[in-house]
Amino acid sequence: MSLYTYLFYSADGQSLLSDDATLAHMLQFEGALAQAQAKNGLVPVASAEMIVACCQADLLDVDRLKRDSSLSGNAAIPLVKQLTVLVRQRDEEAAKFVHLGATSQDLVDTATVLTIKQFIDWLDGKLSALENSLVRLTKQYRRTVMIGRTLLQQAKPITFGLKTALWLEGIGRSRQRLTDVKKRVLVLQLAGAAGSRNRSISAEVHENLATQLGLRPSVSWHTQRDNLAEFASVLGILTGSLGKIAKDVSLLMQTEIAEVLEGKAEGKGGSSTMPHKRNPVTSTAILANANRVPNLVATLLAAMPQEHERSAGLWHSEWEVQTEIMQLTAGTVERSLELLNNLDVDEQRMRQNLELTNGLIYAETVSLALAPNLGKAQAHELVEKACSLAVSQKKYLKDVLLEQHLDLSDLDELFKPENAIGQSLDIIDSILTHYDPQL
Amino acid sequence: MSLYTYLFYSADGQSLLSDDATLAHMLQFEGALAQAQAKNGLVPVASAEMIVACCQADLLDVDRLKRDSSLSGNAAIPLVKQLTVLVRQRDEEAAKFVHLGATSQDLVDTATVLTIKQFIDWLDGKLSALENSLVRLTKQYRRTVMIGRTLLQQAKPITFGLKTALWLEGIGRSRQRLTDVKKRVLVLQLAGAAGSRNRSISAEVHENLATQLGLRPSVSWHTQRDNLAEFASVLGILTGSLGKIAKDVSLLMQTEIAEVLEGKAEGKGGSSTMPHKRNPVTSTAILANANRVPNLVATLLAAMPQEHERSAGLWHSEWEVQTEIMQLTAGTVERSLELLNNLDVDEQRMRQNLELTNGLIYAETVSLALAPNLGKAQAHELVEKACSLAVSQKKYLKDVLLEQHLDLSDLDELFKPENAIGQSLDIIDSILTHYDPQL
Amino acid sequence: MSLYTYLFYSADGQSLLSDDATLAHMLQFEGALAQAQAKNGLVPVASAEMIVACCQADLLDVDRLKRDSSLSGNAAIPLVKQLTVLVRQRDEEAAKFVHLGATSQDLVDTATVLTIKQFIDWLDGKLSALENSLVRLTKQYRRTVMIGRTLLQQAKPITFGLKTALWLEGIGRSRQRLTDVKKRVLVLQLAGAAGSRNRSISAEVHENLATQLGLRPSVSWHTQRDNLAEFASVLGILTGSLGKIAKDVSLLMQTEIAEVLEGKAEGKGGSSTMPHKRNPVTSTAILANANRVPNLVATLLAAMPQEHERSAGLWHSEWEVQTEIMQLTAGTVERSLELLNNLDVDEQRMRQNLELTNGLIYAETVSLALAPNLGKAQAHELVEKACSLAVSQKKYLKDVLLEQHLDLSDLDELFKPENAIGQSLDIIDSILTHYDPQL
Amino acid sequence: MSLYTYLFYSADGQSLLSDDATLAHMLQFEGALAQAQAKNGLVPVASAEMIVACCQADLLDVDRLKRDSSLSGNAAIPLVKQLTVLVRQRDEEAAKFVHLGATSQDLVDTATVLTIKQFIDWLDGKLSALENSLVRLTKQYRRTVMIGRTLLQQAKPITFGLKTALWLEGIGRSRQRLTDVKKRVLVLQLAGAAGSRNRSISAEVHENLATQLGLRPSVSWHTQRDNLAEFASVLGILTGSLGKIAKDVSLLMQTEIAEVLEGKAEGKGGSSTMPHKRNPVTSTAILANANRVPNLVATLLAAMPQEHERSAGLWHSEWEVQTEIMQLTAGTVERSLELLNNLDVDEQRMRQNLELTNGLIYAETVSLALAPNLGKAQAHELVEKACSLAVSQKKYLKDVLLEQHLDLSDLDELFKPENAIGQSLDIIDSILTHYDPQL
Repeated sequence: MSLYTYLFYSADGQSLLSDDATLAHMLQFEGALAQAQAKNGLVPVASAEMIVACCQADLLDVDRLKRDSSLSGNAAIPLVKQLTVLVRQRDEEAAKFVHLGATSQDLVDTATVLTIKQFIDWLDGKLSALENSLVRLTKQYRRTVMIGRTLLQQAKPITFGLKTALWLEGIGRSRQRLTDVKKRVLVLQLAGAAGSRNRSISAEVHENLATQLGLRPSVSWHTQRDNLAEFASVLGILTGSLGKIAKDVSLLMQTEIAEVLEGKAEGKGGSSTMPHKRNPVTSTAILANANRVPNLVATLLAAMPQEHERSAGLWHSEWEVQTEIMQLTAGTVERSLELLNNLDVDEQRMRQNLELTNGLIYAETVSLALAPNLGKAQAHELVEKACSLAVSQKKYLKDVLLEQHLDLSDLDELFKPENAIGQSLDIIDSILTHYDPQL
Repeated sequence: MSLYTYLFYSADGQSLLSDDATLAHMLQFEGALAQAQAKNGLVPVASAEMIVACCQADLLDVDRLKRDSSLSGNAAIPLVKQLTVLVRQRDEEAAKFVHLGATSQDLVDTATVLTIKQFIDWLDGKLSALENSLVRLTKQYRRTVMIGRTLLQQAKPITFGLKTALWLEGIGRSRQRLTDVKKRVLVLQLAGAAGSRNRSISAEVHENLATQLGLRPSVSWHTQRDNLAEFASVLGILTGSLGKIAKDVSLLMQTEIAEVLEGKAEGKGGSSTMPHKRNPVTSTAILANANRVPNLVATLLAAMPQEHERSAGLWHSEWEVQTEIMQLTAGTVERSLELLNNLDVDEQRMRQNLELTNGLIYAETVSLALAPNLGKAQAHELVEKACSLAVSQKKYLKDVLLEQHLDLSDLDELFKPENAIGQSLDIIDSILTHYDPQL
Repeated sequence: MSLYTYLFYSADGQSLLSDDATLAHMLQFEGALAQAQAKNGLVPVASAEMIVACCQADLLDVDRLKRDSSLSGNAAIPLVKQLTVLVRQRDEEAAKFVHLGATSQDLVDTATVLTIKQFIDWLDGKLSALENSLVRLTKQYRRTVMIGRTLLQQAKPITFGLKTALWLEGIGRSRQRLTDVKKRVLVLQLAGAAGSRNRSISAEVHENLATQLGLRPSVSWHTQRDNLAEFASVLGILTGSLGKIAKDVSLLMQTEIAEVLEGKAEGKGGSSTMPHKRNPVTSTAILANANRVPNLVATLLAAMPQEHERSAGLWHSEWEVQTEIMQLTAGTVERSLELLNNLDVDEQRMRQNLELTNGLIYAETVSLALAPNLGKAQAHELVEKACSLAVSQKKYLKDVLLEQHLDLSDLDELFKPENAIGQSLDIIDSILTHYDPQL
Repeated sequence: MSLYTYLFYSADGQSLLSDDATLAHMLQFEGALAQAQAKNGLVPVASAEMIVACCQADLLDVDRLKRDSSLSGNAAIPLVKQLTVLVRQRDEEAAKFVHLGATSQDLVDTATVLTIKQFIDWLDGKLSALENSLVRLTKQYRRTVMIGRTLLQQAKPITFGLKTALWLEGIGRSRQRLTDVKKRVLVLQLAGAAGSRNRSISAEVHENLATQLGLRPSVSWHTQRDNLAEFASVLGILTGSLGKIAKDVSLLMQTEIAEVLEGKAEGKGGSSTMPHKRNPVTSTAILANANRVPNLVATLLAAMPQEHERSAGLWHSEWEVQTEIMQLTAGTVERSLELLNNLDVDEQRMRQNLELTNGLIYAETVSLALAPNLGKAQAHELVEKACSLAVSQKKYLKDVLLEQHLDLSDLDELFKPENAIGQSLDIIDSILTHYDPQL
């Protein structure tokens, strides 16, 4: 377990995606296969039961299995070998039916899909929690005015609730994608040595095994890897959306801005040499992961043009990378949940920062208010000049405009931040509506 | 236009994704925005009409626009400037309403989406043609026996129709993905300076503009870029699936295999120094593209953690890369269509190659046939030994087995390729059923 | 020419890397090859002269060449064909000797290397200018105190000159790398159809041609692409170092920090909707490029495992990507030069920002000063508590410490920024010493 | 330890790059730092000795350290904390001097460099063994004629020794790169909280510590990461060159070609369902790794634009990725050594495969032989026609040419493979000369 296992990863993820989980899924496949074949009269029921009885991870010699994998090129061959020995020790006859008609890739791929299935279940729960957290933040800070920033410059006021509501929108679309991809990725692989199936893995066996494992039936996808590539992409997109949240928080935490802070925890975020700092540790971990996942997704896309009926290398390059993407996604999701559940929002500082430009941030509002009379371009120009004066003379923009005797009765109103947030509140409500119909 | 424009790209793609198309979509946005605002009483109808009248690409000074883009950081600002001047020259009043309430990113992003919309329409047509081509090949070669190959080794017989049917499956899933992503990517961007909208771009204007442009309404996705990242992923996956086809063809074209050849064309595939060669030129172009697209997708994923309400750099990195992905996809799709429409299949050579191993490719069939009596493991072992003998003594496997007096009455049948293709035909039919219900 | 050609690219780069330049280099190869062969008695001198005379880009039918490239799979075959026709029209005999003994890849690869050679020359000049600019900035702001920031938090004071000196160090190492890679990348490709050469391209011809073209001789690197991958990596690293500068500038330009600003230019950096903004347009372009180049480098690395004696696809995927990397690097370098040559540094604001934390940034200095007496850990702890008090009571850290009657006579000195910059000045001088020995 | 640890990785690599090794290097830094400071009178000698005495990995509570890392954001802070406690338990005074003046990143980065240093030493040894292996193969198969293949088509004869000699060339350049990068990557990081150093880490301490650790001194590279990016690129290029070897072997192992085979080993390369297969297991592992490394290198390049004086996220994304690149490189190198040390070369099959095209592979030789009389183009055309005849009439090319009464006295000689290998032998010798001067 790596030095940074608690920083970048999730304990749940580590366990869902462990070698043990993989081996358990491989044995689940073998047991269920024998049962499906027994149901279809291809394997004696007693033999199938014996096989199932032997499908226990603690009976395996895992170190031997790892060593043998380097000779066979995958973990399926040594697993089947060990399983067959185990069965044979108890029942010579039953041993004849282990892994009957299946090929190594059927076993490896289906075990991967079973892992993905559990992972998606876990992820769904976590994303639901993330959405709840964002709904809560959005409601709480619905009217909290802060400056919106574009190209790292103060632009015009929004509310913090609008920001969190838009974060929420992104996560919501990721959940849609997860639903869409399930149709294509949660499928059985059972196609035999060259993808053409055989009597022992008939259509009926296929259907039956799929049902047992809670997967959809499918023709061979031994060298059609679009489903796995899509799943990786979906996780990559989710990680990107979470990276966006962390990016915002890390920027808002800057000493000079300090509007939003990661929650304090004993021993968290301190610096070894600068006792006063409050480092964005959680955001940092998320951003680190968000820099890693995209290129892992690219590896899976690059692995798609696989040769003939089974690839020599590209398939093999998927295994650890697919797992790594899930591991990093799990860590990112968990860190994001911690981040959002413990966010300190400094509403007062948000207010103060609105004053930093001497009213320049209201320039667009004024500009739009002048546009009906002057036209957009002329209004823009007039305001631009007033802004220049405000800057050079270090005056408040409103005062500069007042000196110009503009025909604007409600200048004071234009310079109130709560009047400058556009339709922030309506947008927030339209988003929340999907999550909380009672609203 | 690059030296290799005809090799890697598509003429249609070049035109759909040209600068001209972008500018036309930008002007379409500006015109439709004014009209939507007129409908909602925010802009005088006459002004809106004048704006629409000026929204003509040939009125723009494109070179100037390009130069100004380097100062403004995007093409929207100079375009709006030029458009405003054009309108003002004809109607001072109307000029006040150009681009009213919108921000540069609204314009740039929506123009991108309009381009994507046209591109998807084109792509759908091409994928349909690809599917037709694959359906035709699958029907034609449904029973054409060839060797299936795993890890670049001869494995066991399949039919060429099974191979093309599985290619088809992959493309079919890409079409599903395209349908899924449309929901999320074909959306309007109209959110104003900081994503909070304003009176001039009210919910009603938004709805109305979306309808005019054939897009869905949406809240701000100025820094929520999951939709574009997903679209890129979908194209990346499609390119991967097409790369798989090209990989197979290029391997099957090898001098030593020569089962499938790219169609001959005057001047195609010759070598400058080796007059006898028939190079896999089309496959080569597809494979080249398939090596490029994955990392471009990664760039869009990496561009997701955008700062605050508009990014300084990541957004900008999307523009050309998104276009490049579409360009390469278009080229890949068109080359694939050429490839499949002109494939030469050498059925006789396929037959001959089945004989190369002296019957070793039937080993699994024999093994499975022996398994019910001997058990899988023992059958495997027996056949393995027979294979060794066949190799060392350069005998046909059947003859070696005959010498061992196995209890297998139908040995001859086991060594007929058409009996060794498993359920290839059923699988093919189950796939074709989705494309041709009359089958 | 793309809409954003002036934003992301360089005019020089566009011209150095144009199709015209490629064709010119291809013709240069053909002419020089004939001459080298003439010198070695393999081609009549008159024929070689005629070939050279015909090696003029304006004689080529470029559109035809592009179209034919899609059939032949590269530009070499149609170019040689056209050249042969041109020569034959004037001299039947000479036509026999065009491209004698060479293969398409010899032509394509050597033309690429000739382009790289010119590009490196140009780049060297630009990097020298960049270094000069950084040396100038470093000298000018050697003593300008500003806050150093770690994890986006104020940490402790440095000088702006230290920052620019460290930027300079990075660029300096990129120049070393450029020197190192020249040895390996500026090599002739002349190896014939399968890399084994032949009588017409003897060792003597090889040597002679290399000398003519200003390249090193080399054995076949038809499918050994490490040299090109290395060159791409070197450019990728350079772009990363320039991206680092742009990242710093964009962050320092934030409204709330505003210590460093991109130089103003007529029409530059304005916002279409917010007249007061000063966007980091140049930094933005650099950062966009820096997000694109890494994945293009990965494509060239992924293209390395090329098949046998010439690849079917991976080689082809290099061509445009290698060019794109150079194009983006050229744009990045030119934008960086503009950025650094026009930087506005607000020394007063830097001073002001040092005061934002009420002295907390001096915590480490105090801590280190206390360490000899108290021990590092205890000093750290004591200062940490004082910091907490300073924050909660909104007091200046020095005042809190004074209340604690520490045994520190020179507390005032510890809170002077110029005393807290460590060895910034010495470090600067040690760096400048490499650039300006008179210093 | 992952399921595939023996397939994709190296036991040596696992140990060199383990968490234990990292912690040992971190402690080495702390001990040596105290000693360097003692030598310069900044720390009492006894204290330094006590610190060194406590710098033992087995005294650390590693699980605690991992957990604390998730709060502090790196492993340095908890390590220093634990070390300080350990020292304090024995010597209150000495505890004051632990990690004096250094910052977390100094510790983390220098430990990384120490790991890289050991890794390079190991790698150099392995590459030397690889070169020896390739020298041996090259000598042994110097004259072994085989077909050269371009675009996966038979092209013209070469020798197998030429192929291995060119593989060797690529590895040789990787060793040069390793030498070049050492200058820049094996450098000390010791720059203090904001990169400006301080009294406790004076220039003298810096020099002294560098010498102790066998590194070069350096100014701060806290956010100048070009050295690490370059090192990653160098490994990426090496992996690509090894991937090229594995690609060739896997293709040459194809059932239909079978010229080169991976060495047999008990239990190696068998298929679970096809007892006769001899899978390219080792090549497959190498190719899998070669598909993964390029995108990991891209991650390090993308991590370069780090913020200010220490990055929030990009730095953190380097740690595991840098290790992963080294791990995969180590595995790739070791697998390659196994591959080359056990290669079975079937010279007879190489001969046979030369005959597959009925002499077409001599077309270029004939073409070149005819060129002096007929001109290159006409010769090419004549031979092209003869090839067509040979193909359509299934005749041997020589016989077709004989029927055309060409003026070529030595047609028989042209069709001898050993006469068609161009300058293969000279090229081989020129390469071997660098490795074996006695040759």
